[in-house]
Amino acid sequence: MRKHIFNAGPCKLSDPCLENTAKAVVELNNSGQSILEVSHRSKDFQAVMDEAVSNLKSVLNVPDNYHVLLLGGGASTQFAMLAMSFLKKKAAYVNSGAWSKKAIAEAKIFGEVEIIASSEDKDYTYYPKGFKIPTDVDYLHITSNNTIRGTEIFEDLDSPVPLIADMSSDILSRPVDVSKYAMIYGGAQKNMGPSGVAFVIIRDDMLQKVNTERAIPSMLNYKTHIDGGSMYNTPPCVNIFAVNETLKWVKSLGGVEAMEKRAIERADLLYSEIERNSLFRPTVEEGSRSRMNIPFVWAEGKEDLQDKFMAFSQKYNIVGIKGHRSVGGFRASTYNACSIEDIQALVKCMKDFEKEV
Amino acid sequence: MRKHIFNAGPCKLSDPCLENTAKAVVELNNSGQSILEVSHRSKDFQAVMDEAVSNLKSVLNVPDNYHVLLLGGGASTQFAMLAMSFLKKKAAYVNSGAWSKKAIAEAKIFGEVEIIASSEDKDYTYYPKGFKIPTDVDYLHITSNNTIRGTEIFEDLDSPVPLIADMSSDILSRPVDVSKYAMIYGGAQKNMGPSGVAFVIIRDDMLQKVNTERAIPSMLNYKTHIDGGSMYNTPPCVNIFAVNETLKWVKSLGGVEAMEKRAIERADLLYSEIERNSLFRPTVEEGSRSRMNIPFVWAEGKEDLQDKFMAFSQKYNIVGIKGHRSVGGFRASTYNACSIEDIQALVKCMKDFEKEV
Repeated sequence: MRKHIFNAGPCKLSDPCLENTAKAVVELNNSGQSILEVSHRSKDFQAVMDEAVSNLKSVLNVPDNYHVLLLGGGASTQFAMLAMSFLKKKAAYVNSGAWSKKAIAEAKIFGEVEIIASSEDKDYTYYPKGFKIPTDVDYLHITSNNTIRGTEIFEDLDSPVPLIADMSSDILSRPVDVSKYAMIYGGAQKNMGPSGVAFVIIRDDMLQKVNTERAIPSMLNYKTHIDGGSMYNTPPCVNIFAVNETLKWVKSLGGVEAMEKRAIERADLLYSEIERNSLFRPTVEEGSRSRMNIPFVWAEGKEDLQDKFMAFSQKYNIVGIKGHRSVGGFRASTYNACSIEDIQALVKCMKDFEKEV
Repeated sequence: MRKHIFNAGPCKLSDPCLENTAKAVVELNNSGQSILEVSHRSKDFQAVMDEAVSNLKSVLNVPDNYHVLLLGGGASTQFAMLAMSFLKKKAAYVNSGAWSKKAIAEAKIFGEVEIIASSEDKDYTYYPKGFKIPTDVDYLHITSNNTIRGTEIFEDLDSPVPLIADMSSDILSRPVDVSKYAMIYGGAQKNMGPSGVAFVIIRDDMLQKVNTERAIPSMLNYKTHIDGGSMYNTPPCVNIFAVNETLKWVKSLGGVEAMEKRAIERADLLYSEIERNSLFRPTVEEGSRSRMNIPFVWAEGKEDLQDKFMAFSQKYNIVGIKGHRSVGGFRASTYNACSIEDIQALVKCMKDFEKEV
């Protein structure tokens, strides 16, 4: 019995992605080989890689002067890789949550970091806005969606310096003006596919900005992977296959415009219930609420119901709603593959629980 | 129709691995979720990770003072990571082929490299032996099997300095005395599973030898991954699942002792035919011949038959035997999951071709 999956990532993926990946694990096309076995240098796999890159470019309307990479090592490797490459003297970072802090910590290994805006003062319950971007920094780094706290920025900033965004948890959930970014990156394991592969969309001129005074290992050098077509080393083949299936599914439903419409519907429905239900309350300020991660906690005096609700929700086939330990309560991660029926099931569960207690 | 797969990696995997991974992509256990969807922090996935680590430890008889890691980024990331961590002043490397050279190039970024033995003089057609290991180096690095040239060392060296081995392409093909190594690492995509995950077996005391004067990114720090139980960042879940299935299969057949017996049988059968067949000749010296990668070229004057034999071999459902561009001719990679029937099919193809031309 398929569950209503609200995991924060890895997370729910589309049925066609699961079905086609399972088939390819048995046999890729009619190659007589599994996607786990086929050589990454074969025509069969090259076609998968080319299609995935091409689909990502078309879905996000990526301009021609950008490279698209699909790499192992996760977004966490990118934290170091981008700072190692582009931080010469000083970089600006927006501190909007736990993952921003991790990116900042890696950057500090390689140079000076200026925190130009932060929402740490209010436990990251809002997304910093209206900050001034300095012009004397090598780049500005933002985390566009904060998975743990559930805040998101929906604006593509105008930046006088190269803008680099970790979009791990909101990529493909809305149209993005890629031309405003020098680089967009993230782990695939939310809206783009399974864990084990990261995406990097990088503007060509950034290669000229790499710090040549620093010794950079080949695997942490963007040029290595651009020159190698994401196959300098053996790529994570089955993961890239599943990414391509996810991108095909996004396209089939109408692209990122359709994804945005679905995301708004889902978030509106769930936030309405959180606001209405006497047992729960949201944690994030209006105007900063992520459509991808929706945390909610108990109304005052109701905290003792935690275990009871967790058990109750299991009867509704709901999984993955336990809140992050730093926030408590609950978090429903409502990524692209999450259906309105999944939200309806959660809302019904919340309503029924309110009646029962 | 299943092919006879001789790919150099990714490569043939066992039927149970493919079947069980395909099932888990549809649904993991009875979780109502795919292995592509399940949270890496869930009991279901933690069980997969724990079992994979435990199976690798038991199959290789890893002593208690070693850590076993399963990481993204491939062996190529390890080239830099190990040098960044352990190269303080000078490291010794054996240059036995293309992958050794890549490891050496990464090490040179971080310090002095002494090549203590090399087979470059004879195009890497033998494995250097009888070399003296210096005592004034931080470590000795070897590549135990050379995928491209098809040479292998079957001895676990006695080393006065920490011995680090890239065993990407011969791990699990014979019993190894792990206690003689400070670290063993490699990509999984040959004998251990699909691409997208690397293994690291590292002795606990190596953590005390890390160069503390060098700024090391978190993702390139072994301590990060040991402390995080290979889950400091989101791990490549489906890849680790397939690794565990491969390890279970190795165990079910009798472990690395059985794998070695199978490997010897396969290599003996194929090398006998290469030696016997008037059309072909081996490229590797006796005593250095890998059991995992078996290159062979045309006997003198027969080179024009290349395309004809490639087409002929397709009729026998043989894939992956095209030689590496630096060697030419053919290479049959005969990893653990390769059956004696696969070799018999290739041998029959070679015999039939000899009769036909």
